[in-house]
Amino acid sequence: MITNTKMISFQDHSGELGHLVAIEGNRDVPFEIKRVYYITGVPEHVTRGFHSHRKLEQVLLCLNGEVKIRVKTPQEEETVVLNDPSKGLFIGHMVWREMFDFTPGAVLMVLASEYYIEDDYIRDYGQYSAEANNFFKE
Amino acid sequence: MITNTKMISFQDHSGELGHLVAIEGNRDVPFEIKRVYYITGVPEHVTRGFHSHRKLEQVLLCLNGEVKIRVKTPQEEETVVLNDPSKGLFIGHMVWREMFDFTPGAVLMVLASEYYIEDDYIRDYGQYSAEANNFFKE
Repeated sequence: MITNTKMISFQDHSGELGHLVAIEGNRDVPFEIKRVYYITGVPEHVTRGFHSHRKLEQVLLCLNGEVKIRVKTPQEEETVVLNDPSKGLFIGHMVWREMFDFTPGAVLMVLASEYYIEDDYIRDYGQYSAEANNFFKE
Repeated sequence: MITNTKMISFQDHSGELGHLVAIEGNRDVPFEIKRVYYITGVPEHVTRGFHSHRKLEQVLLCLNGEVKIRVKTPQEEETVVLNDPSKGLFIGHMVWREMFDFTPGAVLMVLASEYYIEDDYIRDYGQYSAEANNFFKE
């Protein structure tokens, strides 16, 4: 996995009644869950994301269907396929992300360590690249 | 709506890229989000739930497909259909709940105000009924 990303496996309480996955803040993920958001109904061929965060940490989970996540730093790049509700992708500081290839009915849920703060976003790749080169040099 | 339940509408940031709904703890829901769990892959004809909580509060959301939630107290009963990711069902103290008629691909997500505490569950309807009669009399 590239810098500041990792996969987290959650316990799947699975049986004849279906699957149940539970995630507790500060226990199963390394932060308090301040914000939950989810993305649905994404048409084929749409790519979303195109930003990085300075301080926000997140865990991305695909609860139905499949979605691909491209994560990158100026030095590294990797594409993670999410299609198992018990496997989350942790994304830490200063990692650029793009989400694409949502299948019909795909549900991407994100658990976030902070409330929404527009100033924490870097949406321009040139600016990201400059800040990230500096950040990862330290 | 029956006692200690209500619908909460969340803002749907919707457009050509799909839908995004964001929920912040203590802001969009009336509690800190300590725990998130989700139920998937529930076969047809399965009913889940069959319990009440003494202190836990929750918001239930259906992020894909459809699911029905039967909520009841000893005096009242109602069935809520969840099929819109921007509409959540708040369930407060001492409300019995059953979840059923999950469509294929249905995703039921629950935001909870507390970590998992087995002692907070009431799983026997007779015991629930006795406690609830007492609780709602006050």
